[in-house]
Amino acid sequence: MQYEWRKLRADQLREQARLDAIVILPVASLEQHGPHLPVEVDSLLGETVAARTAEKLLAKRQPVLVLPVLWTGLSEHHMSFGGTVTLDNAAFAALIEGVARSVLRHGFKRIVLLNAHGGNENALRTITDDLTPKLGVPIVQFTYWYAAAVAIAKILETQGGLQHACEAETAMMLAIRPDLVAIDRIPLAKSNPTPDLSDVVGGGVYRWRSIGSRSSSGVIGNPEAATPGKGEALLDAISTALGEKLCNPALWDLPWTSENVTD
Amino acid sequence: MQYEWRKLRADQLREQARLDAIVILPVASLEQHGPHLPVEVDSLLGETVAARTAEKLLAKRQPVLVLPVLWTGLSEHHMSFGGTVTLDNAAFAALIEGVARSVLRHGFKRIVLLNAHGGNENALRTITDDLTPKLGVPIVQFTYWYAAAVAIAKILETQGGLQHACEAETAMMLAIRPDLVAIDRIPLAKSNPTPDLSDVVGGGVYRWRSIGSRSSSGVIGNPEAATPGKGEALLDAISTALGEKLCNPALWDLPWTSENVTD
Amino acid sequence: MQYEWRKLRADQLREQARLDAIVILPVASLEQHGPHLPVEVDSLLGETVAARTAEKLLAKRQPVLVLPVLWTGLSEHHMSFGGTVTLDNAAFAALIEGVARSVLRHGFKRIVLLNAHGGNENALRTITDDLTPKLGVPIVQFTYWYAAAVAIAKILETQGGLQHACEAETAMMLAIRPDLVAIDRIPLAKSNPTPDLSDVVGGGVYRWRSIGSRSSSGVIGNPEAATPGKGEALLDAISTALGEKLCNPALWDLPWTSENVTD
Amino acid sequence: MQYEWRKLRADQLREQARLDAIVILPVASLEQHGPHLPVEVDSLLGETVAARTAEKLLAKRQPVLVLPVLWTGLSEHHMSFGGTVTLDNAAFAALIEGVARSVLRHGFKRIVLLNAHGGNENALRTITDDLTPKLGVPIVQFTYWYAAAVAIAKILETQGGLQHACEAETAMMLAIRPDLVAIDRIPLAKSNPTPDLSDVVGGGVYRWRSIGSRSSSGVIGNPEAATPGKGEALLDAISTALGEKLCNPALWDLPWTSENVTD
Amino acid sequence: MQYEWRKLRADQLREQARLDAIVILPVASLEQHGPHLPVEVDSLLGETVAARTAEKLLAKRQPVLVLPVLWTGLSEHHMSFGGTVTLDNAAFAALIEGVARSVLRHGFKRIVLLNAHGGNENALRTITDDLTPKLGVPIVQFTYWYAAAVAIAKILETQGGLQHACEAETAMMLAIRPDLVAIDRIPLAKSNPTPDLSDVVGGGVYRWRSIGSRSSSGVIGNPEAATPGKGEALLDAISTALGEKLCNPALWDLPWTSENVTD
Amino acid sequence: MQYEWRKLRADQLREQARLDAIVILPVASLEQHGPHLPVEVDSLLGETVAARTAEKLLAKRQPVLVLPVLWTGLSEHHMSFGGTVTLDNAAFAALIEGVARSVLRHGFKRIVLLNAHGGNENALRTITDDLTPKLGVPIVQFTYWYAAAVAIAKILETQGGLQHACEAETAMMLAIRPDLVAIDRIPLAKSNPTPDLSDVVGGGVYRWRSIGSRSSSGVIGNPEAATPGKGEALLDAISTALGEKLCNPALWDLPWTSENVTD
Repeated sequence: MQYEWRKLRADQLREQARLDAIVILPVASLEQHGPHLPVEVDSLLGETVAARTAEKLLAKRQPVLVLPVLWTGLSEHHMSFGGTVTLDNAAFAALIEGVARSVLRHGFKRIVLLNAHGGNENALRTITDDLTPKLGVPIVQFTYWYAAAVAIAKILETQGGLQHACEAETAMMLAIRPDLVAIDRIPLAKSNPTPDLSDVVGGGVYRWRSIGSRSSSGVIGNPEAATPGKGEALLDAISTALGEKLCNPALWDLPWTSENVTD
Repeated sequence: MQYEWRKLRADQLREQARLDAIVILPVASLEQHGPHLPVEVDSLLGETVAARTAEKLLAKRQPVLVLPVLWTGLSEHHMSFGGTVTLDNAAFAALIEGVARSVLRHGFKRIVLLNAHGGNENALRTITDDLTPKLGVPIVQFTYWYAAAVAIAKILETQGGLQHACEAETAMMLAIRPDLVAIDRIPLAKSNPTPDLSDVVGGGVYRWRSIGSRSSSGVIGNPEAATPGKGEALLDAISTALGEKLCNPALWDLPWTSENVTD
Repeated sequence: MQYEWRKLRADQLREQARLDAIVILPVASLEQHGPHLPVEVDSLLGETVAARTAEKLLAKRQPVLVLPVLWTGLSEHHMSFGGTVTLDNAAFAALIEGVARSVLRHGFKRIVLLNAHGGNENALRTITDDLTPKLGVPIVQFTYWYAAAVAIAKILETQGGLQHACEAETAMMLAIRPDLVAIDRIPLAKSNPTPDLSDVVGGGVYRWRSIGSRSSSGVIGNPEAATPGKGEALLDAISTALGEKLCNPALWDLPWTSENVTD
Repeated sequence: MQYEWRKLRADQLREQARLDAIVILPVASLEQHGPHLPVEVDSLLGETVAARTAEKLLAKRQPVLVLPVLWTGLSEHHMSFGGTVTLDNAAFAALIEGVARSVLRHGFKRIVLLNAHGGNENALRTITDDLTPKLGVPIVQFTYWYAAAVAIAKILETQGGLQHACEAETAMMLAIRPDLVAIDRIPLAKSNPTPDLSDVVGGGVYRWRSIGSRSSSGVIGNPEAATPGKGEALLDAISTALGEKLCNPALWDLPWTSENVTD
Repeated sequence: MQYEWRKLRADQLREQARLDAIVILPVASLEQHGPHLPVEVDSLLGETVAARTAEKLLAKRQPVLVLPVLWTGLSEHHMSFGGTVTLDNAAFAALIEGVARSVLRHGFKRIVLLNAHGGNENALRTITDDLTPKLGVPIVQFTYWYAAAVAIAKILETQGGLQHACEAETAMMLAIRPDLVAIDRIPLAKSNPTPDLSDVVGGGVYRWRSIGSRSSSGVIGNPEAATPGKGEALLDAISTALGEKLCNPALWDLPWTSENVTD
Repeated sequence: MQYEWRKLRADQLREQARLDAIVILPVASLEQHGPHLPVEVDSLLGETVAARTAEKLLAKRQPVLVLPVLWTGLSEHHMSFGGTVTLDNAAFAALIEGVARSVLRHGFKRIVLLNAHGGNENALRTITDDLTPKLGVPIVQFTYWYAAAVAIAKILETQGGLQHACEAETAMMLAIRPDLVAIDRIPLAKSNPTPDLSDVVGGGVYRWRSIGSRSSSGVIGNPEAATPGKGEALLDAISTALGEKLCNPALWDLPWTSENVTD
C-alpha cells in the first residue's frame, strides 16, 4: 500500500483526502554530523521514521500519507563546520505554512509535523502555536526521539537520549545505510573534553551555542558504542510508539480552536 | 542602590554600561488568571522575580539593571476568556529585537530575557537562537520557574511545578499583593474534570490547545492550597537560584559566535 | 473604582466590555531627559495623565479602562545620549496593532491612543490612519499636551508649550515624583546656545534632527523655571480637557468607515 | 536650463551629481476632487510647484533636478467616491525608500520630498524620520502649502489655508489648466452643512475620517471664490518661499546623524 | 474622448466603471539610454503606446482608461551608468498590487499591465501569476514589443526586435520627440565589441548581467539606423496589434480562477 | 565519485569548496500530472537531469555537487486537481535565498538553479535578478528543457517542446521509472478539445490561467506518443547540452556586479 505522497497520482491523493488520511510532513536539515557521518543524517532518519510509522498506521488500517522531507532546517549552530544549509526563522516558518495550507486546501484535516532535527524544535513549536488557531485545524508536532524516551534510554549504553552524530544516530545509520558510515573515522569523533556546564546552562537557563564551542569534532556523544542492532531497536521502538499515538482518536478529537467564555 | 532602568538618568545609565552591568528584560503577558486573580499575574511576578534577582546580584557587587516588563506576550490560548492581550509571532519577535538592539548600542554586553509566561517560552527560545549569532552577543534566556525546579517541587503540595493561576501563582500573589487575590472566588477555580491526556499529548507529542478546552475556569492546578508562606518561599528560592546562575562568569565567558573549522 | 486593566480579573474585564468602556492605551518611551530627570519621564507622565483622565471620566459615570503604558517608542533622535530604547517603525506599528486587535476581539469598541512622547507623534497618526478603516472601529489618537494648549501656555512662564526635560516636564515631575528630580543637576541642563533656525526649518519645512545637534545637554527648554505648583496645574488642566473631550458622544458617533458614493 | 530628471541623459545626470544638485521628488496622489475638478489635481499642482521652485533655484544658480511626480499616495479617505488610487503604508514607504536609495547611489547628497497631498503628510514625516538616520543623508520634507502660510492666508478670501477642491486648489487649476475645471459643476460642490466639530476633534485630538463623512460632494471649502488671479498669486508665493528656503545653506549644513555623547 | 484617468473627474470615472472600461497601467522605468537619449525613453514610449492603443480601442467603441505611467521599475542592471532609478522586487510588487486593488475596488473588472521596460518583464509575470488568482480578476500583462513581433522585424534593418537605446527605440523617439534625441552623440553609442556569448548564455541559460558588462556605451543595438519613419511605423504596428488583441472578447471570457476537479 | 551533497560528510564538502565545485540546486514541484503520472514527475525529472548533468561534468573533471531537490514550488495553477503543493512568491524566494546564502558562506562561488517546473520559471528569473547583484556571485538559472530545444524537437513526434504530463514527460518517466506510469490510464489523459487561443494569448500577451481551464484531464500534450526510447534520448540530449554549457569557463568569467561608469 503506497503512502508516499510524491509517488501517488492526483486522483489517488483526492481519494486519500476523502478517507481523511493523516498527512505526515518530515522536517529535518542538512548539517554536519561529525567526521564519520554524511550531512543527510537527520533528513534520512526523518524519512525513515516517517515511513516506518506510516507502515504501522497502515497495518491498523489508518490511511496515512508521507510528504517528502523538508531538508531546509535551522542549523546556524552547525554552520562553522561547512556542509550545512540553514534558513532564517521567517523563511522556515513561511515554508511550513505554505505546505500546510496546500494540504488543507485539498480537504485533509490532520497534519503531523514530524521533526528530526534538534535545531528546528523551538521554532516548530512556535509555528504550531501560530498555525493551529489561525488555520483552525489539528496540527500535531513532535521531535521523533521524545516519543519513546524510556525505550530509547534502555537501548543506549553511553547516553540517556539522542545527542548529535552519537551512539544513537550512528547506530540507526548502521542499521539502514552502513555504507554511509565511515567507520574508520569514528576515532576522530572524540570531542575535546569540554568543561561540565550543567550548573551554568542547565536548570532552565538557555543560551544559543555554536556546536563548535561545545565539540571540536562536531560530535556530541559517543559513536563508538553504536551497533546496527541498537539502531534497528531504536527505529522499531520509535515507530511503534508513534504509530500508537497517531491512531489514538483522542489525539484528534480535542477542540483546536478558541471558544468564547460567557459568564 | 537603584537597579530600575526607568528610574535612572541617562548619565547614570552610561555609567552602568561602562561597568558592564547585566541587563534583565522581564517578558510576560496580560492574560486571564481564573476567577480569583487579576490579568497582571505574570507581569507582576516577572517584575518581582527580576527585582529580587537584581537585589541578590547587587549584594554580590554585580552591576545589574532591570528594564520595565514587556506585558505584550503570546496568549492566543487564553483569548476566549476575555481580558487578554496577545501579539502575533512576528510582532513579538520584532519587539524583543528592538529592545535588545537599543541596549547593545549603548555598550551593554550581557542581556537576560527573563520570561514569566508559559506562552512565550517556545518563541523566546527561537528569538534567542536568531538574535545571538546575528548580534554576536551573549543573550541568556529562561523561564523563571525552571531555575529552581527542585526547590519549587519541595515547597508545593499539590503540584510538581508551576501551572496556571494555581497553588504556586496564587501563593506568590498572596505573598506580595494579597489585596489582589479574590479569596472568596477561589472555589470557582475548580476546573471541570478533564480526561487524563498524558498518554495522548505527553511523550513529546505537542499540540496547541486553547486553555478553554482544558479548564472551564481558566485555572490549571489547585489554588486552594496556596498560602503566603509558600509564596514567599518560592520567590526566595527562585531569586536565589537565578542570582547564583547569573553571576557565574562561566555563563558569559563561553563563545557566542560561530568560528570556522579548518581541516 | 478600579480602572487599571492589569489589576482586574478576566470576569471584570468582560463586564467592562459589556458596559462599552473606553480603553485608553498610553504610548510613551524610555529616553534621555537631560542631566536632571530619569529616562521614564514620558512613560510616567503618560501613565499619570491616563490615570487622571480616567478618574475624570469615572466621575462622570463613563466606564473606562487604562492599559499599562507601552514604554517602547520611537526615539532614534535621543540614542546618542545613552539610556534610550527605540523600536523601528515597523515594530512599533505591529505592537500597536496587536494590542488594538486584542482589545477589539473582547468586544470593546472605543480605543484611545494617548501619546506622551513627541517622537511617536507622526507614526501614531499614520497608524491611526491605517487601523481605523482596516479594523472599522473608532480609534482616537492624541498627544496629551495638545489637548489643553491654551491652558498650558498660561501656566508656563518660559515657553509656550511642552519641550523636552523642560519647565513643563520638570514641573510635572516635581508635582508627582520630586524624589526623581536631581535638582542640583538642573544647572547642567543649560543647552549651548544654538543658532535660531526658525527661518530654516520652520514654515512647514521638516527634517529629522538628532537632539544632540540641537542641545548638548539633551534639554530643550528651561527646567529652572519649574515648580511643583505649575506641574499640578498642568496635570489638572490636561486631564480635565481630555476628560471632557473623551466623554463627548459626538467624538464617537461620527462614521468611521468608507461608504460608497452613488451618482 | 533643463531641470526635469526624466528629460536628461545619463551623462547629464552624472554631471548634475558632481555639481551637488538638489533633487526634488514631488509626492502626490490621484484622488477625487469634487464634482468640478479632475483626480490629478494634487499631482499636477505638485509638478507645478516643483517646476516653479526649480526655476527659482536655477535663477540663483543653484543646480536642481525634479523627478517625475509619484502619483500613488495614501488616499483611503477618498476611496468611497471612486476614481481614487491608494497604496497601503508599507508600499508607500518602500516606494519612497527605493527612489531615495537610487538617487543617493548616484552621488547626490540632498533630497527634497515635496508633498502635495494631505493624506501623505503624516506618513512622509514618519518616513523622513526613518530614512534620515538610516541613510545618513539630509532629507528635507514639506507639504507645499505650509511654506507660505501667511501669504496664502492673505490671498484667500473664504478660507485660511488649503482645504480640498477648494478656493485655493480651484484657483490654481484655473491659473494653469482652466480647461480642466468644470465651472458649470461648481454649484454641485456645495457640501451638506456638517456640524461644527472643532470642539470634538480639534485641540490635538486626532481621528481618521472618511471625506464622505465630512462632505457629500467631496469638497471641503468654497470653490466658488476661486479666480485665476488668486491661483497665480498662490503659486508664485509658494514657489518663492520654497526657493528661498531650499537655497539657504543653513538648511543643509546641520548635522544629520547621531553622535555619541561622552561624559 | 478623454481616456487619461488623471484628467477625469471622479464622477466620470465612476461612469467608466459602469461601462466596464478596460484599465491600462503602463509600467516602465527611468534608466540610462546611452549617450544620445534621455532616461525617460521607456516611460515615454510606454505612455505613447498606451495612448495610441487606447485610441484604437475607442475607435472600436471599447471604453478604456489609461493610468499614468509607473516610472519606478526594476533597473539594477543599469545603475552603474547613473541617472537610473530602481526599486527592489518587493516594493515593485507592492506598488503594482496597490494600484490594482484600488482599481478593482471601484468596480473595474479588466486590468492591463502594459510593460515598456525589459527589466520589469520577469517580475511582472510573477506578479500577474500572484495577483490573478488572489484577486480573482482578469489581469492581462505584456511587454509591448512582443505584440507585433513580426511587423517589428520587418520594419527594422539592423536588428530582429527591440534592444536598448537601439535602432527601434531611437526611431520611435525621432518620431515623437526628435528634440530629445542628441543626434550628434549617436556616434558615441557604438559599443565596444563584446564577445559573442550566444553559446554561453543562450539556449535558455539565464544569468543577470550588468549592462555595463555588455556595452561600454550603455547601448545595445545600432541607433545609427534609426529614422522617424521607422519609428512611426513601429508605433502604428504595435498599437494596432494591441488594439485588436485587447478588444477580443475571448481574451477576457476565459476563466480566471481555480475550480475544483471532482472525480 | 559522489556528487550528491546530502551523501557527503562535512569534511568532504569543505574539500569540494576548496576545489571550487559548481553547486546545482534542482528546483521543482509536487503537482498533478494527469490521470497517469504521479505528482513527483517534475521533482524526479529535476533530480535525474541534475544527476546526469553532474556525471557529464565529472567525466570532464569538473568538480560538482547536487543538492536535494526543492519540491516546494509555485503551482497555484494546478491546485484545483488536488495532490498539489504550492508556496506563495515570498516564501519561494526566501527559500531559494536561504539555500544560496548557506552555500556561499561555505566558500562555494558558483550556483546553478536548475528548474524543472514551468510554474517556477518567471519567479526564478526574478530571484536570479535579485540575488546576483545582492550577493555578488554568479548564479546561473535555467529551465532544463530549454537547454537542448533543437534536439528535443527532433525527438518528439507530436509536440515541439515540453508540455505537461505529455509525450516528453511520459517518455522520460517510462525511461527511468516505468512502474510509476499507469499505462492503462493514458486514454483518460485526452483533454477536452479547447478552442485555439493562440491569437488571444499568444504574441506576448500573458495571463495566468488555471490548468483546469485549459484541460479537463490536467494533461497538455499527447502522452500516447511516449516511448522509453524517446525518454532516454531526451535525458541524454539535455544532460549533454547542460554539461557542455556549465563547464564553459566563459559562462562564469563574465562580471557579475555593477561597475560605475565615469565620464
